Amino acid sequence: MEAVLRQSRSMCPFLSKTSPATLRSLSTTAAGHDVSPGAGKMSNLQVLARRCPIMGKALTVQSARLGNSTLAGAFGGARAYHTRVNRARLHTSTPKEAQAVDIEKTQSRAVPFPHAPKQPISAQTASAAAPAPPHAAKFDYEGFYQNELDKKRKDKSYRTFNNVNRLAKDFPRAHRETEADKVTVWCSNDYLGMGRNKHVLDKMHETLDMYGAGAGGTRNISGHNQHAIALEKTVADLHKKEAALVFSSCYVANDATLATLGSKFPDCVFLSDSLNHASMIQGIRHSGAKKMVFKHNDLADLEAKLASLPPEVPKIIAFESVYSMCGSIGPIEEICDLADKYGALTFLDEVHAVGMYGPSGAGVAEHLDYEAHLAGKSKGTIMDRVDIITGTLGKAYGCVGGYIAGSAKFVDAIRSLAPGFIFTTSLPPATMAGAKTAIEYQANYQGDRRLQQLHTRQVKDALNARDIPVIPNPSHIVPVLVGSAEVAKEASDLLLQEWGIYVQPINYPTVPVGQERLRITPTPGHGREYRDELVTAIESVWNKLGIKRTSEWAAEGGFIGVGEPGRAEEAPLWTDEQLQLDAVVKEMKTGGAVNVLESVLEKERLATAQVVSAAA
Amino acid sequence: MEAVLRQSRSMCPFLSKTSPATLRSLSTTAAGHDVSPGAGKMSNLQVLARRCPIMGKALTVQSARLGNSTLAGAFGGARAYHTRVNRARLHTSTPKEAQAVDIEKTQSRAVPFPHAPKQPISAQTASAAAPAPPHAAKFDYEGFYQNELDKKRKDKSYRTFNNVNRLAKDFPRAHRETEADKVTVWCSNDYLGMGRNKHVLDKMHETLDMYGAGAGGTRNISGHNQHAIALEKTVADLHKKEAALVFSSCYVANDATLATLGSKFPDCVFLSDSLNHASMIQGIRHSGAKKMVFKHNDLADLEAKLASLPPEVPKIIAFESVYSMCGSIGPIEEICDLADKYGALTFLDEVHAVGMYGPSGAGVAEHLDYEAHLAGKSKGTIMDRVDIITGTLGKAYGCVGGYIAGSAKFVDAIRSLAPGFIFTTSLPPATMAGAKTAIEYQANYQGDRRLQQLHTRQVKDALNARDIPVIPNPSHIVPVLVGSAEVAKEASDLLLQEWGIYVQPINYPTVPVGQERLRITPTPGHGREYRDELVTAIESVWNKLGIKRTSEWAAEGGFIGVGEPGRAEEAPLWTDEQLQLDAVVKEMKTGGAVNVLESVLEKERLATAQVVSAAA
Repeated sequence: MEAVLRQSRSMCPFLSKTSPATLRSLSTTAAGHDVSPGAGKMSNLQVLARRCPIMGKALTVQSARLGNSTLAGAFGGARAYHTRVNRARLHTSTPKEAQAVDIEKTQSRAVPFPHAPKQPISAQTASAAAPAPPHAAKFDYEGFYQNELDKKRKDKSYRTFNNVNRLAKDFPRAHRETEADKVTVWCSNDYLGMGRNKHVLDKMHETLDMYGAGAGGTRNISGHNQHAIALEKTVADLHKKEAALVFSSCYVANDATLATLGSKFPDCVFLSDSLNHASMIQGIRHSGAKKMVFKHNDLADLEAKLASLPPEVPKIIAFESVYSMCGSIGPIEEICDLADKYGALTFLDEVHAVGMYGPSGAGVAEHLDYEAHLAGKSKGTIMDRVDIITGTLGKAYGCVGGYIAGSAKFVDAIRSLAPGFIFTTSLPPATMAGAKTAIEYQANYQGDRRLQQLHTRQVKDALNARDIPVIPNPSHIVPVLVGSAEVAKEASDLLLQEWGIYVQPINYPTVPVGQERLRITPTPGHGREYRDELVTAIESVWNKLGIKRTSEWAAEGGFIGVGEPGRAEEAPLWTDEQLQLDAVVKEMKTGGAVNVLESVLEKERLATAQVVSAAA
Repeated sequence: MEAVLRQSRSMCPFLSKTSPATLRSLSTTAAGHDVSPGAGKMSNLQVLARRCPIMGKALTVQSARLGNSTLAGAFGGARAYHTRVNRARLHTSTPKEAQAVDIEKTQSRAVPFPHAPKQPISAQTASAAAPAPPHAAKFDYEGFYQNELDKKRKDKSYRTFNNVNRLAKDFPRAHRETEADKVTVWCSNDYLGMGRNKHVLDKMHETLDMYGAGAGGTRNISGHNQHAIALEKTVADLHKKEAALVFSSCYVANDATLATLGSKFPDCVFLSDSLNHASMIQGIRHSGAKKMVFKHNDLADLEAKLASLPPEVPKIIAFESVYSMCGSIGPIEEICDLADKYGALTFLDEVHAVGMYGPSGAGVAEHLDYEAHLAGKSKGTIMDRVDIITGTLGKAYGCVGGYIAGSAKFVDAIRSLAPGFIFTTSLPPATMAGAKTAIEYQANYQGDRRLQQLHTRQVKDALNARDIPVIPNPSHIVPVLVGSAEVAKEASDLLLQEWGIYVQPINYPTVPVGQERLRITPTPGHGREYRDELVTAIESVWNKLGIKRTSEWAAEGGFIGVGEPGRAEEAPLWTDEQLQLDAVVKEMKTGGAVNVLESVLEKERLATAQVVSAAA
């Protein structure tokens, strides 16, 4: 049976374009709604197979041979939905019956699309089909919603949102429903606190007063203005590209750009990292183009897939720099090498990296040539080699919106062709002006992202010292492994209720079942008291709920990096040298006292405070 | 050949799920990039057909019968892309050759997917295939972009954005590149000037200071707050629905909601108005569900299509209240009747109507039961009967963002399932707070939308009096027919350069070729001087460019309502009574003086100014 599926996949456009997840869902979900109770054993995949010219006929003939003549007509028209047949027999067919079918002979029993109206059912099959009931039931929409929600509650993926109001003047604090009920936020993507940066807010106030609340139209119809022009110039300059284009969000930027490229390039093939963000997965799906998923950060797998494609076929390698739920880093340079070798386009999502890495905050691609960019020499760098970079204005830059950057022709083509860009209202002038200010501020000041990295190191060190299972990674994300949806939710609830610490649990479908975690994101605002409190709280919750420690994972051989020998040693992307901490950190590493790092952090904090107040 | 296509469509999942436009494009576009020059006559559709188990084999056997043995192997592997064959012969096949094919006999020559790697080419065909050239060319991405841009320049659909900076304190004025270069904006969708409303701006300033620039996360991870909760409650109350959900934009709201419903409901069928907005078209396409397009506002066509579907199949009728490019109004009540009769869900886009119609500004559905809603009796009204209403915060409400409103279970299902909602950063707190203020302001004050309607009437009357071809409609849109992309652009340029009036030309693909227009949107801020200037300017441009007048269109029998007998008499949605103008307007109609309307407008303007300053 599996061999048949494999063979079918290489031949059939439906199978080759449908993701394994969808196929799995189709083959395990019973099509209970549109077949009668007696036919309950049929999967949605079988229902689809019946519509296929090959499979449908094979099944029809097969069932006819089994003497089940109603089945042949069951999908011949609207009445199909009410036919009672014993489809269980289909699962017991002998190999002989699964052989190929002579189309010519079965032509008179062709299986039309079930919804096709006014298709005469051939006399031969119509006579055998069951008559339609006089009062057919209408589809139960509310019941369907209820059922979907029940399923989510049952598999613990139903989400309850926490009401958290982040306070600009008391960063990283927030209040819950009432202003008196305060908590410390430890999971925001406003990584650098730019959402409360004085320069950003001043610019937004000023722009609001002068140009109003909204843009008032699409970019083509009265929504294009100096703010859009200036912001796109700033973004293009940041990434050292010819041009940039701003979207409502980076979800929209990724979706619209990939969908447009994949549908326009003839016979385009996507090569997509298995941990890519939902926005890229959707964009690729929406393009209708072929997709090959390569194992996360696995260059050998990527190369094997590239090598299997003809050189002249357009190919897009879609990947990220920082994978936000585990903090791993994509091998950007090596992927550029492969792209050059096989004639592929590189599409790099720097959403969790912009503002955070590189001397100008342009992301990991810039960071990898730190010295060259610092010296203003971008030609030939890794960032220069990446064809398309996408980023957000809503995380480290503290505002909202997303963008693409690349060659002038590429950007003009997306501007001219992508419905998700063309047919939507522009971002408000104040948002664009604020985001531009944030990018410029971070391009000229490294203090925030260096302090963020120091806080990250200290939190990881402190948790590791307490045997708390931090999933090792070289970035600013601190993922703490729990391994159960229910327990992750309990841990999050305890932290909030007993400690006033807000860390959202990350459950399926954002991470695979069994890999549930707390995802902690330190910021420059998380000073010593906050960090001490966090570590104490986590340890208490781990004890109370009996959550597995790193040593316990190690005893089982390790899991996704936790307790795996050697994995914890992965060097951070920001080196000691780049953090300008060589001497002190070396001393700390040999001396071993956390206090040394603390004294560095204290100095950083004071320096940051001075820079900010001087600039304000 | 067409009969074959029709038959194939009813059988083949690919054809039935692919839009006619895509099929047309596939069958007319030559796959010139991946076949050698000698094979240039092959369409993309033919390339795809070769991958289909049925069609591919038919073509293989057919060419084998024609003695072209290379063709049989041409798609057997990577080398296919370099095979030189004379495919022209395929177009001259006799009917006999197009007959069905015995699969069993051709099994050994099965045609795998062209990109499938490591598929051994059967010895029989491999020996005949041409060898791959040693240095195959890579795909030319930049050349492809250039070609796409050239096509757009050639068909005059290449867009140049105008730099227009709308001034909050000088509405409806804006400046261009320099602050001294001022123009009057006549095409913004900030229909009521809410983008500069003092209450909205005050609330935004206050929220910015207290809660910062951005939300800092997705709704699930630290981006849910009191502003989202309050805004969604306000939206639900506005439309008298159980719940509402806010998105980055209404483009995203429509796309995400329709894609989710269509992919989740088993065997869902969409019934979509032919003039639906791009966001709905995309959402339906992204769902992968079957779509039936009914003629614009044609109830008979819609009913015929509904009646052709089995009762228990889920169906979604997707339509708009105000179609923004022509100003026509959807027959909401009648569509609800049909939905009830055939068990369909109604999905109504009120994007261009919210804030503009109804006693609370809830849109056309509310407007149709004006008195009932004014009396607070919404039960059983048309708005109550519509299942799903979508709207924007970026047009009449002056901010940015979009939403859906409907039953609690529906909204919870979309909240839980739609990737376009789940995986994106929330709107900023200040945006949500500002939008909520705008909705509440418009729910409690009718002056802006009444004045907007009066200005619309006056502009339409004045243009019609000068034989300028206004496309008749009962709404607030003033579409002026030009009928040529080039002339529409010229007219727009002349208005801007010689008169300081900004009206963007509306060309293909936003409207069909030949229906190009200027789309004028009056606001409450367009007082007498602005309106007089507009009418004078339009008349001058019409004279200068020799653009057709209404009487000329009439002489040709009329076109899309212009010059068609009876069409200009369509009554506006806002009645004289609702505008509280009965006596005066009647007098005006008999007396005929525009000055009477002017005196009403002057009184309205003064009343509005008083309300606004009293409220401020």
